[in-house]
Amino acid sequence: MRIQKLNDVSRRNLLEDLLKRSPNQYREYEGKVEEILERVRIEKDKALFAYTEQFDHAHLTAKTVKVTDEEIEEAYEKVDPNLVDVIRKAIANIRSYHEKQKRNSWFDSNPDGTILGQKITPLHRVGVYVPGGKAVYPSSVLMNVIPASIAGVDEIVMVTPPDREGKVNPNTLVAAREAGVDVIYKVGGAQAIAALAYGTESIPKTDKIVGPGNIYVALAKKAVYGHVSIDSVAGPSEILVIADESANPRYVAADLLSQAEHDELASAILVTTSMELAEKVSVEIEQFLKTLSRADIIRKSLDQYGYILVSDTMDEAVDTANEIASEHLEILTKNPFDIMTKIRNAGAIFLGEYASEPLGDYFAGPNHILPTNGTAKFFSPLSVDDFIKKSSIISYSREALEKVHKDIEYFAEAEQLTAHANSIRVRFEEKR
Amino acid sequence: MRIQKLNDVSRRNLLEDLLKRSPNQYREYEGKVEEILERVRIEKDKALFAYTEQFDHAHLTAKTVKVTDEEIEEAYEKVDPNLVDVIRKAIANIRSYHEKQKRNSWFDSNPDGTILGQKITPLHRVGVYVPGGKAVYPSSVLMNVIPASIAGVDEIVMVTPPDREGKVNPNTLVAAREAGVDVIYKVGGAQAIAALAYGTESIPKTDKIVGPGNIYVALAKKAVYGHVSIDSVAGPSEILVIADESANPRYVAADLLSQAEHDELASAILVTTSMELAEKVSVEIEQFLKTLSRADIIRKSLDQYGYILVSDTMDEAVDTANEIASEHLEILTKNPFDIMTKIRNAGAIFLGEYASEPLGDYFAGPNHILPTNGTAKFFSPLSVDDFIKKSSIISYSREALEKVHKDIEYFAEAEQLTAHANSIRVRFEEKR
Repeated sequence: MRIQKLNDVSRRNLLEDLLKRSPNQYREYEGKVEEILERVRIEKDKALFAYTEQFDHAHLTAKTVKVTDEEIEEAYEKVDPNLVDVIRKAIANIRSYHEKQKRNSWFDSNPDGTILGQKITPLHRVGVYVPGGKAVYPSSVLMNVIPASIAGVDEIVMVTPPDREGKVNPNTLVAAREAGVDVIYKVGGAQAIAALAYGTESIPKTDKIVGPGNIYVALAKKAVYGHVSIDSVAGPSEILVIADESANPRYVAADLLSQAEHDELASAILVTTSMELAEKVSVEIEQFLKTLSRADIIRKSLDQYGYILVSDTMDEAVDTANEIASEHLEILTKNPFDIMTKIRNAGAIFLGEYASEPLGDYFAGPNHILPTNGTAKFFSPLSVDDFIKKSSIISYSREALEKVHKDIEYFAEAEQLTAHANSIRVRFEEKR
Repeated sequence: MRIQKLNDVSRRNLLEDLLKRSPNQYREYEGKVEEILERVRIEKDKALFAYTEQFDHAHLTAKTVKVTDEEIEEAYEKVDPNLVDVIRKAIANIRSYHEKQKRNSWFDSNPDGTILGQKITPLHRVGVYVPGGKAVYPSSVLMNVIPASIAGVDEIVMVTPPDREGKVNPNTLVAAREAGVDVIYKVGGAQAIAALAYGTESIPKTDKIVGPGNIYVALAKKAVYGHVSIDSVAGPSEILVIADESANPRYVAADLLSQAEHDELASAILVTTSMELAEKVSVEIEQFLKTLSRADIIRKSLDQYGYILVSDTMDEAVDTANEIASEHLEILTKNPFDIMTKIRNAGAIFLGEYASEPLGDYFAGPNHILPTNGTAKFFSPLSVDDFIKKSSIISYSREALEKVHKDIEYFAEAEQLTAHANSIRVRFEEKR
């Protein structure tokens, strides 16, 4: 793996490389996606089933689109009981972490009769998109569904494309049931997003759509945003490791590779103050690549978006991490908590040599759906907050309003909103 | 104002009417907006100043684009001291309410050496758009800026279009200074959004752009979303009043009118269990219209989007309010808090006869930037949460990881992510 000195040139090159991964140029798909959205919005089930026939080669009807209890029971028979066991352990940790994110409505009252507050209400119905195909990720089902469940969402609807026989992957079904999905429909692609956004005869309209998908799904979600809410659109995965000379090069190498295997656009970056570590990590990577099943993908990812950067100081390394705002950040230094306090931008921060990134993907409890592509500067991990909304609460007594009514009328008049001023004034006019 | 029985037909008509206000059909502007964004992204200041010359007829340079301290001092001389005084009182209330929204980072530790947490970090730099032109709303400056200030944003950048002399409205400047804006640039329109999203020689790139604007501004914000964060796109204003026979018809009428005056697309709806109240409110509205300065706008708004609906039961009224999910909801009933518990969807809820909606617009403290057009089903008022982001924190001891490492490896293998499994396994391999 290439080793470079961290300086203005290498930093700029790196940032430019990473930007290339942005999904900007998808105009060609937009027209098709809009056509699908529009047809499903108008023709509902008819269009939904026609597209499912066309794209998934599965023949569905209003009677077969919904996964039955029998199908879920069958799935449990097919899935390795060990996996069910591990899923349950992971769920316990994920629930425990996300429970701590729950927030209460609050009110604040004043003896003059003023009550101000913020009411928290869960979303009513949420749609979770789960991709089909060869790569099936039950962990992703858990991470999307559990925060919604803990927020108190009334109905969690899952959609996932069927195979040609109209069946859904059993691992997906088991993960969905274990995580608390209420109902599952066998539809995928932009047509599934349309169904969740507008509703059809079979599939109810939802308030928010979350979950990863291919470019059609991503564009469809973006197009329906505003009509419903969506989570942010996920980009390729990233890891950045900050390490000093105390880090174990074998661990660092293994952790870089764990993200590089996701896909060819994934990015793995080490920033270290130790040239010796840099060289050892590079050697370890070559060793591991001889045995890993996804070595081809990893090589392509590392060639394009993999970097080992050697910095003069730890402060420089931290600045670079903050500038890149990586999805995953590992800190493998003598005092990782000291470094953590200086980190402003990262989706998830892994501290010390036993907090390997896959621990967070599967098991520790925090969400693995994280901001990518530098968006950790302003976006957050998926959380319970994504499945609630707030309403302000305002109550005033006559006494409380009387004290300030002239100020409000004055302010409204200054903005030339005379009917605003009138609605305050009328409360204090002489009785007619 | 038209009075109708609340039933399936009137409810459906009403929802269809409201939907007509959705800003869906703006294709014609999109090309122009993208051209502006692209030119400012590439040519930076040069394009920014050229567009300012073209659209605002103001000649600006890198030296004059930034509002100077002298210009702000001049503004204070021009603004009525009473307004400054009222602005300061409003700021105290807005700060006090938003302070209660602040959240702390938290950590949770376990004796086996596990630490999990959530780190809260303010956004680094935020851009606030403030419209120019005839309608100047200093209250809106306060509502956008104060939550950012309380969140701890390092730099709050404001942009607002100049007049032909290259000047900015003094009320806007004073509100900005009082609220805590760090720097103000005299640019507006899509070109200002481009500058905030990409940065130019004069204007720094920001992490999030908030604030209302015309259709060019709204489309530009939507287009840069993902590259930076944005607030939600504001639609026309709305009020829904739930009232029973105990309500004062004069207050109800005045409050409906206060929203209808905003613009011709604004919507004012009364749902009441009392036909007598409905009739009285309709009469009061006609009375008020004789004297209000914005009567022409109000009439157009009421003709198109104003409704008085009479329901058989309070439950029906509540259901309708939840279905419409109004930006502002007033509850003028004998026991408003009882009704409030049943409200799921509303931006801000005003309780009782002295919580008139303009109290919330100007003074009480909660934010007046609220979800419109039914989006209160899934969006929230602007808050301190909009100006922070979260990072997950994960730290495990060797002991803690050892207990679960086989489970994680198993889960990763089940998803065929072998490099993920490897990164855990390598921590427990025999020493080489």
